[in-house]
Amino acid sequence: MRTTTGLRAIGPDTLRRVPLERRDLRPHDVAVRVDYCGVCHTDLQALSQYDPRAGTPLVPGHELTGVVSETGSEVTAFTAGDRVAVGNIVDACGACAMCTAGQENFCHSFPTLTYAGTDRQDGTTTLGGFSREYVVRDAFAHRLPDGLDAAAAAPLLCAGVTVWEPLRALGVGTGTRVAVAGLGGLGHLAVKLAVALGADTTVLSRTPDKREDALRLGAGDLVVSTDEARMAAVRDSFDVVIDTVSAPHDPAPYLKLVAMDGTLSHLGHLGPVTVEVMDLLVGRKKLSSAGSGGRAGTAEMLDFCAAHGIVADVEVLPSAQVDTALARLRRNDVRYRFVLDMADLDRAPDGELDRR
Amino acid sequence: MRTTTGLRAIGPDTLRRVPLERRDLRPHDVAVRVDYCGVCHTDLQALSQYDPRAGTPLVPGHELTGVVSETGSEVTAFTAGDRVAVGNIVDACGACAMCTAGQENFCHSFPTLTYAGTDRQDGTTTLGGFSREYVVRDAFAHRLPDGLDAAAAAPLLCAGVTVWEPLRALGVGTGTRVAVAGLGGLGHLAVKLAVALGADTTVLSRTPDKREDALRLGAGDLVVSTDEARMAAVRDSFDVVIDTVSAPHDPAPYLKLVAMDGTLSHLGHLGPVTVEVMDLLVGRKKLSSAGSGGRAGTAEMLDFCAAHGIVADVEVLPSAQVDTALARLRRNDVRYRFVLDMADLDRAPDGELDRR
Repeated sequence: MRTTTGLRAIGPDTLRRVPLERRDLRPHDVAVRVDYCGVCHTDLQALSQYDPRAGTPLVPGHELTGVVSETGSEVTAFTAGDRVAVGNIVDACGACAMCTAGQENFCHSFPTLTYAGTDRQDGTTTLGGFSREYVVRDAFAHRLPDGLDAAAAAPLLCAGVTVWEPLRALGVGTGTRVAVAGLGGLGHLAVKLAVALGADTTVLSRTPDKREDALRLGAGDLVVSTDEARMAAVRDSFDVVIDTVSAPHDPAPYLKLVAMDGTLSHLGHLGPVTVEVMDLLVGRKKLSSAGSGGRAGTAEMLDFCAAHGIVADVEVLPSAQVDTALARLRRNDVRYRFVLDMADLDRAPDGELDRR
Repeated sequence: MRTTTGLRAIGPDTLRRVPLERRDLRPHDVAVRVDYCGVCHTDLQALSQYDPRAGTPLVPGHELTGVVSETGSEVTAFTAGDRVAVGNIVDACGACAMCTAGQENFCHSFPTLTYAGTDRQDGTTTLGGFSREYVVRDAFAHRLPDGLDAAAAAPLLCAGVTVWEPLRALGVGTGTRVAVAGLGGLGHLAVKLAVALGADTTVLSRTPDKREDALRLGAGDLVVSTDEARMAAVRDSFDVVIDTVSAPHDPAPYLKLVAMDGTLSHLGHLGPVTVEVMDLLVGRKKLSSAGSGGRAGTAEMLDFCAAHGIVADVEVLPSAQVDTALARLRRNDVRYRFVLDMADLDRAPDGELDRR
């Protein structure tokens, strides 16, 4: 086994810096020195639900970038020193209809998640990117294009591809009328990507204080979603509404904004959602969702971002300040994504996290 | 006022043959001698909820065919003797975005319903097609193409266009993989129309006893929806699933059958519907709905049906047997749509309905 250092949950919402084991390289594995890892709402959820008595270890993190440090004997696509990125899945069956269609994220036998997943070969629980090293099958390491800042690119691997896939699947392009509800980690990338695709993009936000940011990101307007008159004025006027609001909520106010034959893509919140059929019927509207991406879509998204100079707006903190990042993310106090800098894992003493 | 005869509710689920008044013709009105009127699930619902103490009259029926008997002074599109059909809407604002897009059924100020609606000019409650005469604005009378049997064509005006619009909007054509859940009034027309559009069509039904009908209607297969192995075998395999089941139900089993980027069109049941976002997310699936159609879509559907010889499979009963039709429809004992023959309204004595 290889040893590294990472941030492991020792109880709900509590992480500790500990030594971690990584598997010895299989023929198709690459070892990645993790430089940066984004902090995702999914991490908050996993941590809040973590019970150490369950016996399975939890190391969060599934938006990581770094440099290949070593390659398995059969690896041809990468050599040591290559910049790479890993998203929220690290393996899939490769044989089902979804895998053969390039949508390994929808693998019929469930993709192997980057953390809290089960390795398809040895049955161990996968440990995530809040760590100084990650060992991954070569097919699930993505080349990080030149020109993309490694820290700011990290959130592209989950937040980025999660909004990219529905934008592409819904045919967003020049002149498409897109509204993005919620300007957070997902939302700000949805705006950047929609604008770069040529869409006429509007931000929907509960408060007007993000107007300046929305316009800076390329949106044409910000509509305050609590302003009933403004919401009524934009009824039936967006071909695509990307809903990134992460708390459970009623989709009805956003459905009303969808134009004839358009789609509300509900991305931010998982769980049950209830709609009035009449709200779909009138205007033949559609409710959809999406999450993460396959290998092909992820590569396409990274190339598009490189071509358009798109990365996330990030606040980079040393990994020792992970508690700060989590606490502030919990109250949406970040514009727009925390990224942990893992270099301090080479230095900081065992068992201590910076509580500033 | 003009006088005619019709079937008016006198309490929940109770109709009586009574004299009715129709307005004098406005310049753009046509008077229609109603020969046939389909019996729709909506009629059942309206009758079951009817409270005569509310003070508004209820005469059901919104799938009517007949012959123009008289025209208003400004009518140019019709003359007496023309075969016409009327669906579930008889007016709309004509000015909103939906009306100008030809989707008067989604009029922002709500279309005037054929019955239990409010006339836009005089504020009276509209009385439906269970009647020997209907007076309608010319723009909402549809020419009934030659060759379509007037009785069997009546259900096209609501059931037909309700399935036609999503089939068209979802791009169903040659080779599209379509499943139709529920083989009733809506479902059997969905099968006929999908097959005529070139789709590879499958029926989903709770019981195998409709297999022969399904194949006769042009479907390639019938999958029994309670057969878990068969349902698992067709997972992710339909581009479009048309759900015509009229009782409240969980859409999850049908969503599982939708292919990547495909759509479940929930048509049969109105009211709230709850989906697990994960069931949409995995496969980027869409939930949609539709209902009735605009003027342009209705005319297109009628022309398509004439070109392909499509009408509903109907059981025609004299209007005096409306109780029988309603009772049997309530237990889905019809293949596949009741149509009332209104000729007996010229003869039957007041106040009596045939209770056979």
